[in-house]
Amino acid sequence: MRITLLNPNTSRAMTAKIATAAREAAGPDVDIAAVCPDIGPAAIESHLDEVYAAAAVVELIERDLAAGGSDGYVVACFGDPGLDAARELVDVPVVGIAEAAMHVASLTGRSFAVVTTLTRTLGRAHDLVARYGMSGACVSMTGTGVAVLDLEDTEPAAVATIGEACERAVEHDRAHAIVLGCAGMADLCAQLTLRTGVPVVDGVAAAVGLVTAMSRMGIGTSKLDEYATPPRRLVAG
Amino acid sequence: MRITLLNPNTSRAMTAKIATAAREAAGPDVDIAAVCPDIGPAAIESHLDEVYAAAAVVELIERDLAAGGSDGYVVACFGDPGLDAARELVDVPVVGIAEAAMHVASLTGRSFAVVTTLTRTLGRAHDLVARYGMSGACVSMTGTGVAVLDLEDTEPAAVATIGEACERAVEHDRAHAIVLGCAGMADLCAQLTLRTGVPVVDGVAAAVGLVTAMSRMGIGTSKLDEYATPPRRLVAG
Amino acid sequence: MRITLLNPNTSRAMTAKIATAAREAAGPDVDIAAVCPDIGPAAIESHLDEVYAAAAVVELIERDLAAGGSDGYVVACFGDPGLDAARELVDVPVVGIAEAAMHVASLTGRSFAVVTTLTRTLGRAHDLVARYGMSGACVSMTGTGVAVLDLEDTEPAAVATIGEACERAVEHDRAHAIVLGCAGMADLCAQLTLRTGVPVVDGVAAAVGLVTAMSRMGIGTSKLDEYATPPRRLVAG
Amino acid sequence: MRITLLNPNTSRAMTAKIATAAREAAGPDVDIAAVCPDIGPAAIESHLDEVYAAAAVVELIERDLAAGGSDGYVVACFGDPGLDAARELVDVPVVGIAEAAMHVASLTGRSFAVVTTLTRTLGRAHDLVARYGMSGACVSMTGTGVAVLDLEDTEPAAVATIGEACERAVEHDRAHAIVLGCAGMADLCAQLTLRTGVPVVDGVAAAVGLVTAMSRMGIGTSKLDEYATPPRRLVAG
Amino acid sequence: MRITLLNPNTSRAMTAKIATAAREAAGPDVDIAAVCPDIGPAAIESHLDEVYAAAAVVELIERDLAAGGSDGYVVACFGDPGLDAARELVDVPVVGIAEAAMHVASLTGRSFAVVTTLTRTLGRAHDLVARYGMSGACVSMTGTGVAVLDLEDTEPAAVATIGEACERAVEHDRAHAIVLGCAGMADLCAQLTLRTGVPVVDGVAAAVGLVTAMSRMGIGTSKLDEYATPPRRLVAG
Amino acid sequence: MRITLLNPNTSRAMTAKIATAAREAAGPDVDIAAVCPDIGPAAIESHLDEVYAAAAVVELIERDLAAGGSDGYVVACFGDPGLDAARELVDVPVVGIAEAAMHVASLTGRSFAVVTTLTRTLGRAHDLVARYGMSGACVSMTGTGVAVLDLEDTEPAAVATIGEACERAVEHDRAHAIVLGCAGMADLCAQLTLRTGVPVVDGVAAAVGLVTAMSRMGIGTSKLDEYATPPRRLVAG
Repeated sequence: MRITLLNPNTSRAMTAKIATAAREAAGPDVDIAAVCPDIGPAAIESHLDEVYAAAAVVELIERDLAAGGSDGYVVACFGDPGLDAARELVDVPVVGIAEAAMHVASLTGRSFAVVTTLTRTLGRAHDLVARYGMSGACVSMTGTGVAVLDLEDTEPAAVATIGEACERAVEHDRAHAIVLGCAGMADLCAQLTLRTGVPVVDGVAAAVGLVTAMSRMGIGTSKLDEYATPPRRLVAG
Repeated sequence: MRITLLNPNTSRAMTAKIATAAREAAGPDVDIAAVCPDIGPAAIESHLDEVYAAAAVVELIERDLAAGGSDGYVVACFGDPGLDAARELVDVPVVGIAEAAMHVASLTGRSFAVVTTLTRTLGRAHDLVARYGMSGACVSMTGTGVAVLDLEDTEPAAVATIGEACERAVEHDRAHAIVLGCAGMADLCAQLTLRTGVPVVDGVAAAVGLVTAMSRMGIGTSKLDEYATPPRRLVAG
Repeated sequence: MRITLLNPNTSRAMTAKIATAAREAAGPDVDIAAVCPDIGPAAIESHLDEVYAAAAVVELIERDLAAGGSDGYVVACFGDPGLDAARELVDVPVVGIAEAAMHVASLTGRSFAVVTTLTRTLGRAHDLVARYGMSGACVSMTGTGVAVLDLEDTEPAAVATIGEACERAVEHDRAHAIVLGCAGMADLCAQLTLRTGVPVVDGVAAAVGLVTAMSRMGIGTSKLDEYATPPRRLVAG
Repeated sequence: MRITLLNPNTSRAMTAKIATAAREAAGPDVDIAAVCPDIGPAAIESHLDEVYAAAAVVELIERDLAAGGSDGYVVACFGDPGLDAARELVDVPVVGIAEAAMHVASLTGRSFAVVTTLTRTLGRAHDLVARYGMSGACVSMTGTGVAVLDLEDTEPAAVATIGEACERAVEHDRAHAIVLGCAGMADLCAQLTLRTGVPVVDGVAAAVGLVTAMSRMGIGTSKLDEYATPPRRLVAG
Repeated sequence: MRITLLNPNTSRAMTAKIATAAREAAGPDVDIAAVCPDIGPAAIESHLDEVYAAAAVVELIERDLAAGGSDGYVVACFGDPGLDAARELVDVPVVGIAEAAMHVASLTGRSFAVVTTLTRTLGRAHDLVARYGMSGACVSMTGTGVAVLDLEDTEPAAVATIGEACERAVEHDRAHAIVLGCAGMADLCAQLTLRTGVPVVDGVAAAVGLVTAMSRMGIGTSKLDEYATPPRRLVAG
Repeated sequence: MRITLLNPNTSRAMTAKIATAAREAAGPDVDIAAVCPDIGPAAIESHLDEVYAAAAVVELIERDLAAGGSDGYVVACFGDPGLDAARELVDVPVVGIAEAAMHVASLTGRSFAVVTTLTRTLGRAHDLVARYGMSGACVSMTGTGVAVLDLEDTEPAAVATIGEACERAVEHDRAHAIVLGCAGMADLCAQLTLRTGVPVVDGVAAAVGLVTAMSRMGIGTSKLDEYATPPRRLVAG
């Protein structure tokens, strides 16, 4: 089984880190590929960035389809940009890392907290929580102020800040689990689980697990109505 | 006061129709401009189209800002594509036609129905209804199967189909008002109001009214947190 | 176009202040009238007051209808008393200042806070927030303890208290906008916007803008079912 | 224990019928009084009527208080008009028949249906269902078109229409119980229970039961914040 | 009328206390019986305990039915264990003390707070709040850390801790009423009402009042679909 | 990795069928065990049955723990009986088949329908839909009237009835996916997917996939507060 991770930012370091996290969580018979666009924002930290990220996801899928396609796709950016469009393009499973992390976290306990990068991204996270039916489960969302690119090399100061936010979510909000709000935090799970004593969920690993499960079950994306293949259309220009 | 309508599809006929509808609803001291992209889908009828539409909205605003900017913007496509990104780019009011139509419809009675084009767009409409707090007010959503481009020239068969759907929403779902789910239906309001006996709301006129009201009140887009101007960033490539 | 503001308390000073706020926000072709009852409470600060206020709204509309009627009405009291009954009496637009302020605030950002007079009025505000679909957008409601009549002459101490409450709502609750919870605060918008840095929305101006927009669009109150004209009936006595 | 029923319409026949229903459901040590206003609408069938009904409830309570007061009050009209104001005026229990019927119905099964008089009253019923947390339990609401005054003498045609609506609610909507949406239906419970095979709940009896229970428990209306006694105020005129 | 209280833990002291509280709140013509199982946990403080408690409720009802049955039943444990199964077994009213307390509390004001024993039981309380439509009314839930068995003899330290939690709920969360989250707190109502100044609701008394009311109205458990008598079945073994 | 399926009914045929379905969906390195109680109901079709089923789940887990324990557990009955108690007993992942099926179904499209056995079980299904945040995604629930034991041998008439219900859910309710509401339907997925053209989700396979994913990620059940190990306690008797 081959699963392709779509990282919509242009950071090759981040793409490599995501691939590693995915491989560690994948079963022995799962092949992981990870791709990113040649051009676009180096980090997705605003609605404006999301517009470019959605376009990148579409482009990366079309490129992969042209090369033969995969058995499943992961949108590897916490805003799940372009996820709906990606589902239109294929009939295999497509899962976003925000949705994956939230679904898995909700199986570890009654509640979870999201700990993410910049405060300005909380609006998008809020929309996703509602969209995925997680308004009852999500007890807090924290913007740490850590920029995505500070996670490229896992800067110690950034890790400390994120750890403190996770602890506060557990102690103050009594969150049963933590959802990490950025693909760039994928390598922090183990140490944060140790530090907080509760399950800390990385969306990349969660999404790989979900796509794998769906693929083994022989189910993918429903092509009824909304996610049916869109008509190809001549585009003016 | 100058309000610029952003039509994210490439249909010049549709852009002209939208401008006319806006001018009829604008006050005597309001200037209307309407723009569309040179390249992109001729109609926005899928999530894939929405990805391109959001990029078009961003590009059209940036072009208008370079030319001096406007006192307010209307995203003139019923999926409100790129609305969040547009709000990051300016501090004047930006209103989408779906949100405008729903807010205004909710002032005419307790409930409204959305009557729109293809069934496959209902998912996006559903998301917007929830996002705008209209889940209690929206009593039905109908995809008529009419393609957006059939509205370019207001084809009689398309108008008949839409009229029947509006009547059913009033008679069967007891909708107090109708929200038209496509900018291309802007010229149908008067005849549909006559036919159904309830207020029929076109989002283009509604958005122009709302942007005008906000502008006269001296308020625009809040720049606290989420919609603060995003940092300009070098983009790899 | 003539819009009549219905102030259901008996304060003539407040009525004059409301008219001024409305005229500043109205377009050049809009005529504003403002009326209040001869008898009744001088301020609406309890459910008991609301009962009299609703009766006053009905009486004021009936009097205006007898004199020829208006193109639209604004219920100029934050509890929106008598709004449903008013909609039964006319087919032009009728908008309450609480609903107007909340709808407009929701267009400036993702969230707003209500800052109002006495704590005891928060229950009614809570009901309206839910009724208008604003439970997701309204992040806090503050009763300042300022009495409505202290706003008649815009007492400096009252203004200071309100200003502090607005600041707390922005800094602590991260409200993207402020909704002022009393018609008597209409003259505070400009200075509070300056102080807080976020849009501060007065319902009187917002309601005038919304009624104007609806009137230009040729739509009013739906007469299907709930708001149909009620039968005149002999009343025992 | 003395419980006073407040019928806000002027129908003496209805008032007598309500008193009878209440006495049948009251315990052996409960005294029932039933009062109605001298002037006002003979039936409450519109928002306009509700405005007068709320004023009547206030007036009837003030008159009863002047005569020594009661141990509890029932607002005996399905719109629960003036209920909030009534709670401000006393510290004993005050219960509306809509809220009473819904709470009791929710204890008989998972779901209930409301069967009421005119379609135009469904909006108010909808607001109450939401206000009382019953949106999940209420599976349908039917306006039968039966006028309130046709219930004064329990006209056979009216009873037949109501019976059919109850049956449809059970068979089609699978409602576990029926809530009768008008105090004037109080005498139909037994026969409708027989006809439908499910519990049919009259709000008058339910409210008497609830007020009795609260009174025996020694609890009444909370005077913290919202329902604290409102200040008496000179009223202009 | 005979009402049987089902205490699913094995504490005879608690059973006696519950019976006393019920008798004080019952009308003069109501007979109260209180039973508990011979074997099982002495207190219900975990989901594991709830499993045994549900089985005890079933067993106690079956034993009572064998002895002739009662006119109504109260599940006298705040988790309302086995309530759904109990409703299947009889057609008279069955009410849980959590649901009873919440419904009655919601009639005393707009909001209530739950003050209960161990923090670990809050998840179950949360589920019940949602199930009973009380998410809007319940403004806070506090686990005091007081163990159920410390309430057997009403230990002063336990009472002090509970009193402080009630005060905080009133002062900080502005709860209009308090719901006591354990049958073992039934004897604390009067002193806590005095201390907090707001209605303090014990579920045992509330449930007796509700069952009494339903019984007088001649209504019980709906036997349509969900709560119909389940088929007796041979059980393997 | 060893996953143990807990079938809380006593049907050995059903237990074998469940094990087969699980093995087909498990990865190459996953060991599946399936157990059922010696005594108890042969099918879980009422709230009364659920009481026994919850006790069986507890007993089966305790027996497995005594034998060394597993890496994860699946509660293999659509009511997810005893799931909360099971989570208290272990720190590895525990997933119910209803929750698993709903989470996975929500990843295949925007909406799903539940097709289950007896109508009387819909109440429990409704509670689970709400508890898991799926109220927005679940567009219909159908009780087919097929008894659980008719699924033991996959009777053709039962399969036909279920197939028709699935088709109606797709055609009439436009469900993007089907959730099968009984472990005994696990062998019908492939043919129903073929018949309906949309993903048909069996909870057993879904739960195995989710437990596998969680186990590979190194996360299990959060032991903070609610699901902490309950104290062992002497039990009266």
